[in-house]
Amino acid sequence: MTRILWINPVGTNADDSPMGEELRREASPDTRIDVCSLPGAGPEHLEWNALEAMVAGPTMGVIRWASEIERYDAAVIGCFYDPFLRGARELAGSMAVTAPAEACMHIAATVGDRFSILVGRQKWIPEMHQNVVKYGFADRLASFRVLDMSVDDFQAEPETSHRRILSEAELAVADDRADTIILGCTMEFGFYRTIQKRVGVPVIDAITAPIRFAEFLASIGAGHGWVTSRVSGYSSVPPRELDWIPVVEPVIDIDPRR
Amino acid sequence: MTRILWINPVGTNADDSPMGEELRREASPDTRIDVCSLPGAGPEHLEWNALEAMVAGPTMGVIRWASEIERYDAAVIGCFYDPFLRGARELAGSMAVTAPAEACMHIAATVGDRFSILVGRQKWIPEMHQNVVKYGFADRLASFRVLDMSVDDFQAEPETSHRRILSEAELAVADDRADTIILGCTMEFGFYRTIQKRVGVPVIDAITAPIRFAEFLASIGAGHGWVTSRVSGYSSVPPRELDWIPVVEPVIDIDPRR
Amino acid sequence: MTRILWINPVGTNADDSPMGEELRREASPDTRIDVCSLPGAGPEHLEWNALEAMVAGPTMGVIRWASEIERYDAAVIGCFYDPFLRGARELAGSMAVTAPAEACMHIAATVGDRFSILVGRQKWIPEMHQNVVKYGFADRLASFRVLDMSVDDFQAEPETSHRRILSEAELAVADDRADTIILGCTMEFGFYRTIQKRVGVPVIDAITAPIRFAEFLASIGAGHGWVTSRVSGYSSVPPRELDWIPVVEPVIDIDPRR
Amino acid sequence: MTRILWINPVGTNADDSPMGEELRREASPDTRIDVCSLPGAGPEHLEWNALEAMVAGPTMGVIRWASEIERYDAAVIGCFYDPFLRGARELAGSMAVTAPAEACMHIAATVGDRFSILVGRQKWIPEMHQNVVKYGFADRLASFRVLDMSVDDFQAEPETSHRRILSEAELAVADDRADTIILGCTMEFGFYRTIQKRVGVPVIDAITAPIRFAEFLASIGAGHGWVTSRVSGYSSVPPRELDWIPVVEPVIDIDPRR
Amino acid sequence: MTRILWINPVGTNADDSPMGEELRREASPDTRIDVCSLPGAGPEHLEWNALEAMVAGPTMGVIRWASEIERYDAAVIGCFYDPFLRGARELAGSMAVTAPAEACMHIAATVGDRFSILVGRQKWIPEMHQNVVKYGFADRLASFRVLDMSVDDFQAEPETSHRRILSEAELAVADDRADTIILGCTMEFGFYRTIQKRVGVPVIDAITAPIRFAEFLASIGAGHGWVTSRVSGYSSVPPRELDWIPVVEPVIDIDPRR
Amino acid sequence: MTRILWINPVGTNADDSPMGEELRREASPDTRIDVCSLPGAGPEHLEWNALEAMVAGPTMGVIRWASEIERYDAAVIGCFYDPFLRGARELAGSMAVTAPAEACMHIAATVGDRFSILVGRQKWIPEMHQNVVKYGFADRLASFRVLDMSVDDFQAEPETSHRRILSEAELAVADDRADTIILGCTMEFGFYRTIQKRVGVPVIDAITAPIRFAEFLASIGAGHGWVTSRVSGYSSVPPRELDWIPVVEPVIDIDPRR
Repeated sequence: MTRILWINPVGTNADDSPMGEELRREASPDTRIDVCSLPGAGPEHLEWNALEAMVAGPTMGVIRWASEIERYDAAVIGCFYDPFLRGARELAGSMAVTAPAEACMHIAATVGDRFSILVGRQKWIPEMHQNVVKYGFADRLASFRVLDMSVDDFQAEPETSHRRILSEAELAVADDRADTIILGCTMEFGFYRTIQKRVGVPVIDAITAPIRFAEFLASIGAGHGWVTSRVSGYSSVPPRELDWIPVVEPVIDIDPRR
Repeated sequence: MTRILWINPVGTNADDSPMGEELRREASPDTRIDVCSLPGAGPEHLEWNALEAMVAGPTMGVIRWASEIERYDAAVIGCFYDPFLRGARELAGSMAVTAPAEACMHIAATVGDRFSILVGRQKWIPEMHQNVVKYGFADRLASFRVLDMSVDDFQAEPETSHRRILSEAELAVADDRADTIILGCTMEFGFYRTIQKRVGVPVIDAITAPIRFAEFLASIGAGHGWVTSRVSGYSSVPPRELDWIPVVEPVIDIDPRR
Repeated sequence: MTRILWINPVGTNADDSPMGEELRREASPDTRIDVCSLPGAGPEHLEWNALEAMVAGPTMGVIRWASEIERYDAAVIGCFYDPFLRGARELAGSMAVTAPAEACMHIAATVGDRFSILVGRQKWIPEMHQNVVKYGFADRLASFRVLDMSVDDFQAEPETSHRRILSEAELAVADDRADTIILGCTMEFGFYRTIQKRVGVPVIDAITAPIRFAEFLASIGAGHGWVTSRVSGYSSVPPRELDWIPVVEPVIDIDPRR
Repeated sequence: MTRILWINPVGTNADDSPMGEELRREASPDTRIDVCSLPGAGPEHLEWNALEAMVAGPTMGVIRWASEIERYDAAVIGCFYDPFLRGARELAGSMAVTAPAEACMHIAATVGDRFSILVGRQKWIPEMHQNVVKYGFADRLASFRVLDMSVDDFQAEPETSHRRILSEAELAVADDRADTIILGCTMEFGFYRTIQKRVGVPVIDAITAPIRFAEFLASIGAGHGWVTSRVSGYSSVPPRELDWIPVVEPVIDIDPRR
Repeated sequence: MTRILWINPVGTNADDSPMGEELRREASPDTRIDVCSLPGAGPEHLEWNALEAMVAGPTMGVIRWASEIERYDAAVIGCFYDPFLRGARELAGSMAVTAPAEACMHIAATVGDRFSILVGRQKWIPEMHQNVVKYGFADRLASFRVLDMSVDDFQAEPETSHRRILSEAELAVADDRADTIILGCTMEFGFYRTIQKRVGVPVIDAITAPIRFAEFLASIGAGHGWVTSRVSGYSSVPPRELDWIPVVEPVIDIDPRR
Repeated sequence: MTRILWINPVGTNADDSPMGEELRREASPDTRIDVCSLPGAGPEHLEWNALEAMVAGPTMGVIRWASEIERYDAAVIGCFYDPFLRGARELAGSMAVTAPAEACMHIAATVGDRFSILVGRQKWIPEMHQNVVKYGFADRLASFRVLDMSVDDFQAEPETSHRRILSEAELAVADDRADTIILGCTMEFGFYRTIQKRVGVPVIDAITAPIRFAEFLASIGAGHGWVTSRVSGYSSVPPRELDWIPVVEPVIDIDPRR
């Protein structure tokens, strides 16, 4: 059994339960997924980088809780900006940590030649583009396409979401020569299967992909010792500095099969 | 149960059995791995690109056999040059196909910042470097390092292999700032665990990594429909052309647990 | 006198004679050009990478025949995917080997700033794009443009070909800021002069360019010893491995002036 | 008069006063520089990315305080990782914000062809290298060189610092063909003038460069309206989200000339 | 007081006086700006690279005059191709030298994520694109957009200029996702403020930006010794070679406040 | 018969005659090569960019003379910085123009995977490196190596030249994994054959390569109309501007076979 913590790095647990149900449907049968969000009031989405900054500290605390107290096998930081991934890995010991953009792009680059990323707002593109370059997939990027929807809209207006995602996915294939689609926000969950059937290309879902990639990382870590390298850029935070990073217990939606 | 075919694209089955044993030890418990090589006489290694060319045709035939007749869930083309990966994917239908360099680099780029690839001969480097660039990991490459051994030497002289791999891995970490090591030949199998323990960084093994990555691809294909996209560069070979690609039944070492 | 072998790496000689006539018109007066194709049945075009793989072995055999038995000064592998160029060079000794994409891009990058490549099908683009990157000309690529024609259509429907090539060439100049056009398939031969006159920019032909580049390479090899370097990635296949690469005598259309 | 806030994004004000003195010596005569650090206990340096994450939130709060309450003309986030620069700019309205790596590299790329960055620990390099790429200066990077000193050591052991910086700067010029040196930590302040005289190349100081660049940005913002663009990736945080980012009043060392 | 020489590297002084007035309005109050052009007949614009070549020699002579005789603090070579910048720096001793493209791009890359450059003719793009790459900002380039106007048209037809610049600036923001505009010709001066107000993004002016950047470079040179590095690619022309570069006294429009 | 003008863009004809003899030995038998230099006093080498600038104008005039009056088939601008190549092409009509770095790199990238360039002084490297990038061969560059000799030394001290070139060429192959050597100065002529024999890799000579490449360009221009494209960056200088570029008759060493 693999135990994974999905962290919604926001100050609301409104999406934890439905997202947890979807994640458990999509993950491997022997994976147990708890979904959590940050305790106390906080931003409800991270569309602005300044909002990401506000949840950086508590997220580090949750990573410590997940790794040191609860000993999860893996954690996912559930935002397509992949925030604080380096910091989380410094803290995570042998627990694997990944995030949506990383997972989606590694998969998309394997099942196709060129992908388009469907984002809610143009505002998101520059920061996400820097991640595309950082991960090495700039040559694989067919386009970003803008859905003109906010994070909160995707689940609130599912018909609009479905229609907009379908429309932009089809244009990405027809006009930008994408052969693979990435949904560029975790809140676009629940749509990929029908879109994929309609468009006829792989549609990589921003919660399913990282949960499956997290399982994979947990498995190769446990099985082969392929865990985050500690000799250079991901060296562990030394004990004397850990006091600055208090453990944070999140608000949590426990996998009922646990 | 996931059924994977490991294809040694060479005209000798001398390594199939020991490699199969190692693969079965390293893979997931519910994976069944058959190891095969090409029927008839043929090159015993692929150090030269012209030798790769000689096995291209039969390898395509084996892919058809694996996909259409035997219906494996995944296949691995077992050479670190990742030969004919595009062609194999065109033929593979819903069967996943991967190869060592692709699998090793995706993993190395996730568990570390910079990797070194340990190759047998300098001769191999330019072709492999083109793959590093093609996969998007040029910025992650710390170095290639040359072991000055041929493909056939690795298993024939295990002590030399161990000593040379250890020495170059340590130099890669100390001098090239690599934080991850990739073993750049499938025949370097059997050494990674002890080297990893000695050097203290992840050492990605060229047969273990692709077998695990193949399991992952098979799983996301079956579970989510994330299989090779067919709308552009990986479009399937149409039936009218398939006659030019006769099915080839390989020499095979069957997983005893099957 | 320079003797060049043009290899159509396909299992039909249907185009050898007309292509030979065109090549002899376009080449230098003191060049003798034999055009050959592969013996036995085989794919009639290489639009799929898997079909390329099927002709890889025989093509290597023809390279040996051309280099060791017939002692041509140069050979061209006549497909815009530039298949097996590294393998062919390993085998070719002092015989020069080139291929259409390499030749066209080196010329286009010299007579202009940005080129567009006119391909038959979108399917071809990803593999060809990898070659653009590999050769170093990614910054020079204005666009790929799709003619929506198959390899077999170009000579069968010359009026359609002419019309489609003209149309896309004009759009490449007007919309993509290309100042040079490359015809991205050898079977687009016979059209470049009229298109060039109409569009007013250099139109680099996929059979003329490599035959002229082959002459050039043969000349600098013979005159200055600038032949394929043997110390690293293009080291020669050693004699002990040559048995795996049987000499193949092709079906051949001999230059009548020979 | 230009008013600039230098933010030491750490939980100690131990360096604020000496750094302020140095900054005031180096800045333009009509610039007033207040130096602040974060209130409450917190990390004393940011060598680990997880420590950066812990100060992200308070730093955003200080940016709001600086921009909305105190109306500084510019702010500098005083860490060579350039943390949270995007978030800070989203919040800063017409106040300019910059950071050391950005400022140093823009200057170094103008006064020379190739620079080396002298860092304390190898640990820092991967994150800083990502910034080099992000800012566009990868082709200008001669090398990173490691001083083998921690952030706290630089001011505590000035003779060692001077000796180590001098030694690595000379090696960067001699061995790596650097023609410009960047000091890759703000705490390396106070050394650049003597090193520069000894080595004979520009030595860009990690506190002087950003304070001067901040003056420049403030000046072109006020004079020409060249302030952070708000239409895309740097769009302002909307009022409804600002509640999640409480204003933070820092511990402050006021410019005595104020 | 900072003394800057703006060099119009052309054989007409027709624009010197109006440009000088504009420059003095835009520069810092304590900057004195003399505007000069080349003595004798010569090209009146540099749209063709061959025309640039014709003014290369006299421009070097003016740089010597400015640096050695008049001892300006900085000089700007006033053409958006940034011609002869390396040569000018070799000659300039401690005088700073910059040029419009360099200055505009460094500023644009700081106040935004992506810029578009508005040029007069498509002809200009390839040479300017090479500068974008050389300066490291290829990833920041949203587009070049063509105004279809010649250098001489901009001031002669101000209403057309304003209309065309506005139109293309708006399209760059709407269609190319530019968040910053660069005016790609010095003769586009006088328009940026109104365009900027209308479009709502920073519009970087090709004379204002380099004059402000020149002030900055002069200031950091004088204040911190950050002048052109002399140890490698910008080494000074040795005295024995200076005879080949006669001092040239330009036609000059003196700052009336001098 | 192909008539080529080799232009030594310097104010001395001291090397014209010996260089002409060498060029005529190396070129095709039916090529006639006149070697010229600039009339009047001028720099004797172009090691500094400011010296390049001084010869820019006269070189343009010689290009006009060569193209319009003497109607050469091709011209070579004989300096490894490839100075003014764009301007020369604007003026050259149907005459081909090339230069050493362009020619050497196109050849080296075809006969090998990675080249090293042997330069006289470190000073030369940054400007030459920008050309490597501009031509697209950055991934092919193994290294620059410095001979520590000036332009004037190469022919004056042939034994030292031979020894230094041999030594650095061997190190480039052994330490930098170069498989091809480029001599990075035209004045290194006369050495390549013996060095090539000793080192065992292609050694591309900086006068032989461009003369052969010029023959090739002249031939494909005349035979196929593949001359410089005139629709964009290389558009011809219009007649109304040509008055600014007076024709210059050079000092010339005529091919005695003419």
